[in-house]
Amino acid sequence: MTLRLSGLGMGQLVTGQAATYVEELYVETPNRYDIMCITPDVQSVITKSGITDGLVLVNPMHITASCYVNDLEGGLHHDIMKWLEKLAPFYGVDGKSGEEYRHHRTGEDNGDAHLKRQLMGQQVTMPVRDGRLHLGTWEQIHYAEFDGQRRKRILVKVVGVICE
Amino acid sequence: MTLRLSGLGMGQLVTGQAATYVEELYVETPNRYDIMCITPDVQSVITKSGITDGLVLVNPMHITASCYVNDLEGGLHHDIMKWLEKLAPFYGVDGKSGEEYRHHRTGEDNGDAHLKRQLMGQQVTMPVRDGRLHLGTWEQIHYAEFDGQRRKRILVKVVGVICE
Amino acid sequence: MTLRLSGLGMGQLVTGQAATYVEELYVETPNRYDIMCITPDVQSVITKSGITDGLVLVNPMHITASCYVNDLEGGLHHDIMKWLEKLAPFYGVDGKSGEEYRHHRTGEDNGDAHLKRQLMGQQVTMPVRDGRLHLGTWEQIHYAEFDGQRRKRILVKVVGVICE
Repeated sequence: MTLRLSGLGMGQLVTGQAATYVEELYVETPNRYDIMCITPDVQSVITKSGITDGLVLVNPMHITASCYVNDLEGGLHHDIMKWLEKLAPFYGVDGKSGEEYRHHRTGEDNGDAHLKRQLMGQQVTMPVRDGRLHLGTWEQIHYAEFDGQRRKRILVKVVGVICE
Repeated sequence: MTLRLSGLGMGQLVTGQAATYVEELYVETPNRYDIMCITPDVQSVITKSGITDGLVLVNPMHITASCYVNDLEGGLHHDIMKWLEKLAPFYGVDGKSGEEYRHHRTGEDNGDAHLKRQLMGQQVTMPVRDGRLHLGTWEQIHYAEFDGQRRKRILVKVVGVICE
Repeated sequence: MTLRLSGLGMGQLVTGQAATYVEELYVETPNRYDIMCITPDVQSVITKSGITDGLVLVNPMHITASCYVNDLEGGLHHDIMKWLEKLAPFYGVDGKSGEEYRHHRTGEDNGDAHLKRQLMGQQVTMPVRDGRLHLGTWEQIHYAEFDGQRRKRILVKVVGVICE
């Protein structure tokens, strides 16, 4: 552990009126499993909020979906879904030949979706600066759906300050 | 990526006095591996805080447990524990016949717990509106214990505004 | 679900001037895969911010790395990397004999890194109290690199209040 970080030495302190803003977005994916980039939608909520600086929480309001940050690249989206199916198969923990999810005794058939969403992480909190998402070069906010084809909600909440 | 979201068009801006509130909750599970719903406990802290609007961080102060959001359904809880045991077995990365966790050379026997907690995600940040958790229909906050039977702490921290 | 939590009954309300502070840290790991503890670096940013109380977001600005909280113990770091390689192998979802990641058709060779970072969780939000990280006994903030040997950025953003 001899590594050390170097900072820019140009941290930025911002003060102002404490403010929050929340909006619920609706989404309905054409497929049961789907991935879509929602960076512009999140930015749009931030812009509408008028909040200058702070954090934005992006949280699916459903427990069979994830909001995550990764590459906006179709090959990777394919890899992610294939990989999730291997680690949390539709047919149960042990795959097609094993025991079905106990959750299905309730009449549901989406046990895998509840697990896939944990693998991908359920939510992200991203930084806002000068009214814009403060992202790295390749960071894009995505919505991953594991039980779609019906209307769902994504909560976008900005918490920070409004500068005069 | 032709999907587009539709918003409610009724975003809510809230301003007021900047405020934070923190409390540590204690928990001791009867089993080594356990899952419990803590939504009412988190709500209770928010209510005590008097904070009207903002975010609440729910973070286990221990590194062998998770706070996560998913379904409050016993079958799913069973599935989660069975699934975690498959992906991060008690006996080591390769299961019973493989190499034991190197972490156990320290005298610990909870290597699996450190990994299970990463699979489930360590923490959640949830929205607060009008002094209440702003949850989707099925969102419930859970504490998952992977090395229990002793007293542990959960940190609940509210950050936001108090409206006059 | 008969478990109940007990609180300290000594929650702490803090009010003051709303403030945010952000800094980008630079890191370049000597190895492609590496883990380093960054708790002191995060604390240093908090101290420079002058912010008394709130939250700190620790987010890698790259999509092949994770910021996570777990044990600062070399054996566990070894276990984590071995475990990630099993669940998200360098050679593809199915390992050496299987299909390569489709992401590699872009010319990249880091498909595994994009998945490993999801397994570990991409980011953490930690509590700040009295100008200090409010951590459990064994909580340490780490940076996990899965495609290193080049300069990368870690964003540290503090959001909270400055008390008079």
